[in-house]
Amino acid sequence: MNARRVAYTGARTLTVEKVEQAEVPPLGAGEVRIDVAYTGICGTDLHVYHGAMDARVGTPAVIGHEMSGRVGEVGPGVTGWQAGDPVTVMPLAWCGQCPACLSGQSHICHRLVFIGLDAPGSLQTGWTVPADTLVRLPHDLPLDHAALVEPTAVAVHDVRRAELRAGEKALVVGGGPIGLLIAVVARRTGADVLLAEPDAYRRSVAESLGLAHVDPTTEDVAAVVARWSGDAGAAVAFEVSGAAAGVDTAVEALATRGRLVQVAIHPTPREISLHRFFWRELTLVGARLYDRADFETAVRLIADGEIPVDTLISRVEPLDRAAEAFEALESGAGVMKVLIDCQAEEGADAR
Amino acid sequence: MNARRVAYTGARTLTVEKVEQAEVPPLGAGEVRIDVAYTGICGTDLHVYHGAMDARVGTPAVIGHEMSGRVGEVGPGVTGWQAGDPVTVMPLAWCGQCPACLSGQSHICHRLVFIGLDAPGSLQTGWTVPADTLVRLPHDLPLDHAALVEPTAVAVHDVRRAELRAGEKALVVGGGPIGLLIAVVARRTGADVLLAEPDAYRRSVAESLGLAHVDPTTEDVAAVVARWSGDAGAAVAFEVSGAAAGVDTAVEALATRGRLVQVAIHPTPREISLHRFFWRELTLVGARLYDRADFETAVRLIADGEIPVDTLISRVEPLDRAAEAFEALESGAGVMKVLIDCQAEEGADAR
Repeated sequence: MNARRVAYTGARTLTVEKVEQAEVPPLGAGEVRIDVAYTGICGTDLHVYHGAMDARVGTPAVIGHEMSGRVGEVGPGVTGWQAGDPVTVMPLAWCGQCPACLSGQSHICHRLVFIGLDAPGSLQTGWTVPADTLVRLPHDLPLDHAALVEPTAVAVHDVRRAELRAGEKALVVGGGPIGLLIAVVARRTGADVLLAEPDAYRRSVAESLGLAHVDPTTEDVAAVVARWSGDAGAAVAFEVSGAAAGVDTAVEALATRGRLVQVAIHPTPREISLHRFFWRELTLVGARLYDRADFETAVRLIADGEIPVDTLISRVEPLDRAAEAFEALESGAGVMKVLIDCQAEEGADAR
Repeated sequence: MNARRVAYTGARTLTVEKVEQAEVPPLGAGEVRIDVAYTGICGTDLHVYHGAMDARVGTPAVIGHEMSGRVGEVGPGVTGWQAGDPVTVMPLAWCGQCPACLSGQSHICHRLVFIGLDAPGSLQTGWTVPADTLVRLPHDLPLDHAALVEPTAVAVHDVRRAELRAGEKALVVGGGPIGLLIAVVARRTGADVLLAEPDAYRRSVAESLGLAHVDPTTEDVAAVVARWSGDAGAAVAFEVSGAAAGVDTAVEALATRGRLVQVAIHPTPREISLHRFFWRELTLVGARLYDRADFETAVRLIADGEIPVDTLISRVEPLDRAAEAFEALESGAGVMKVLIDCQAEEGADAR
C-alpha cells in the first residue's frame, strides 16, 4: 500500500502527500472506499488551482471528480457492491427536502454538495464516497476511458436539455473537451454540427473527429451559419466558451424559435440582446451537471465506442506529477484532457 | 359619409384629416375595407407618437392595430365575408417563403409586415386590409370590448409560450394592460398569480380584479415570492416591464427550472446573470405577437366574459380627440387602455 493524495493548499500549489493508515477513518454506514484508477482534470479544477474558489473549497483541499476506479472496501449496510467492482461516481449529494429535490430536480438541489469541491475529491489513491453515488462500469471498459464518463454525462445532459432532433443544425461555441463531447453527442443524435473555436489545435482535434468547424477570429460565424442553413440559422446553439463574445455569436446564429443551451459558467452578468429573444422567439436554456440517466447513457456511449476517448485524452500523468499536469493544462497549448493516474502502485507510465 | 383619418406627421404630432372619396383607391383582389369602430392605443403606438420609430413607420403615417369594426366592402375574389360582418384584424402579413414561414412560424416571418406600423393602420374610419387578416367576431360582442382582442391574443400567446400549468406559481412583472391581461389569462389556467407593479393606480386595478400584487419599490419581490412559494420560487415569470430592474426581479424570483417569458421590448441589451440560468437550469422564452389560434382564443375569452374589459378600458375618445387621447396615455396617471372611436358619424360619446 502506498496511499497518497494531492492536496491543494493555495493558488498554484499542489502537494503530494503520503496518507498514513492511521489517518483514514473507518467507513461509515453506507460508505465505500474506492481504489481510484484515473482522475481527469476539468476546467473547474483549474479554477480551483488558480485560487478562484478558495472560499468554496477551503484549504487544504483534495479536489477531483472525473474519475474511474474499483470498489476497495464497502462499509456497513452497503449492498450490491463488492471489492473489485469497476465504478465511476456521480459526485452529487442532495438534501432530498428542498423544493428542487421535491420537484424531481435533485441534481440542482438548493443545498447540493458537489463531491470534489464541497467535499473531498478523487485526486487520491483511496476515496471514500456514499455508495449511492456509485455508477457501475462494464468489466471490459478500460478505466482510463471510463474517467471520461463524467464529462460525457455533462454533454449528454446538455444535448438532452436542447431537445435536439435528427436533421437539426447545431452550433457548438467552444471546442474544449466539453464542447467536443457535446458536438460528438449531438452528431450522434443525427444533428448537423458546426463547431466555432478560435484555437487552431482544438480545431485540428475537431477536424480529426470529422467535425465541421469555423474560426470565429477570422470568419463571421453568423454569416457562415446563414450559408450553412439556407439563411435559417441554427436550430440549437451550445454556449460552451464562457466568453461574452461566445454568447453574442450563439444568439446571432440562432434561427427563429432557436434554443441556446447555456453550458459554460459566466461568473459575471452578460449583456444579452433580449430584443433578439423577443423578435425571433428564441429560448435560452440553462444546463448544469447531469442526473443518473445521463451517467448511464454516458457509460453506454463510451462502452460502445461512440466517444473518441483516445483522441480526447492528451496525456496521462502519475499522481506524483499532478502539479506538472495542471501546469500543462493551464498553458492550454496542444492539450485536451489530462488524466492523473491515481493507482497506488508507483511507476505508472505516462503517455 | 364623413371619412377621416389620424395622420402621424412627426414626434408628438397627430392631425385629423378628412379623407376625400377621390383619394380612396378601389379595392384590390383579396382586399376588404373595414368600417372601423374602435382602435385601442398600445405602447408601441405611443413609441411612434414619441418619434422613436420614424425610420420604420415613415411620415405621414396612419397607425393603429388594436381594433374592431364591420366589413364595409369586399374586393374582387373575397369569399366568406359580407358587408356588416363584425370583425377584428390579425395585423400580420408574411412572405410565406422564408425559413420562419416554412417552419410554421409565419407570425415571426423574417419579412413580416406588421399592419399598423409597416403598412397603414386603423386610426381611420375606413381601413383596407387583406381579407385573410380578418377574424370573425360574434354578432353580440360589443365592439368596444372587441377592440381588446388583439392585446388579449398577446397575453394568450405569452401564457402558451410559458407552458403554464394549473397550480403553478406565476409572477407577472409589470401591470400595464398587457401585464394585467397576462395575469388574468394565467389565473384562468389555474395558476396562482402575483403581480409586481410600482404604480399605485395600476396596483389598484389589479386589486379590483382580485389579483395579488406587490410594490417592487418598497418590497423585495424575490423575498415575497419565496414566502409565497414555500422557498421554491415562481415556476414562471412574465417580464412585461421593459425595465432592466424588471428582468433582474424575474430572474431572482424563479424556482429551479423556472421559465422566464420575455414579453416586453428591451431596445438595448440587458445584463443577465447567466450564472443563475446555469445554476438553477432556468429557461428564458421570447414571446412575440400571436398566431390565429391565439386570436380565436382571445375572441372566445372576451365573448365569454373572462376578460375584464370594462375595467381595462379607461376611456373612449372620439377620433377628433386622438391627440388628446395620446397625451392622456402618455401621462400614464390613472389610465389603462384608451380607445379611439373611429366611427364615421360625428358626435360619438366619450366616456
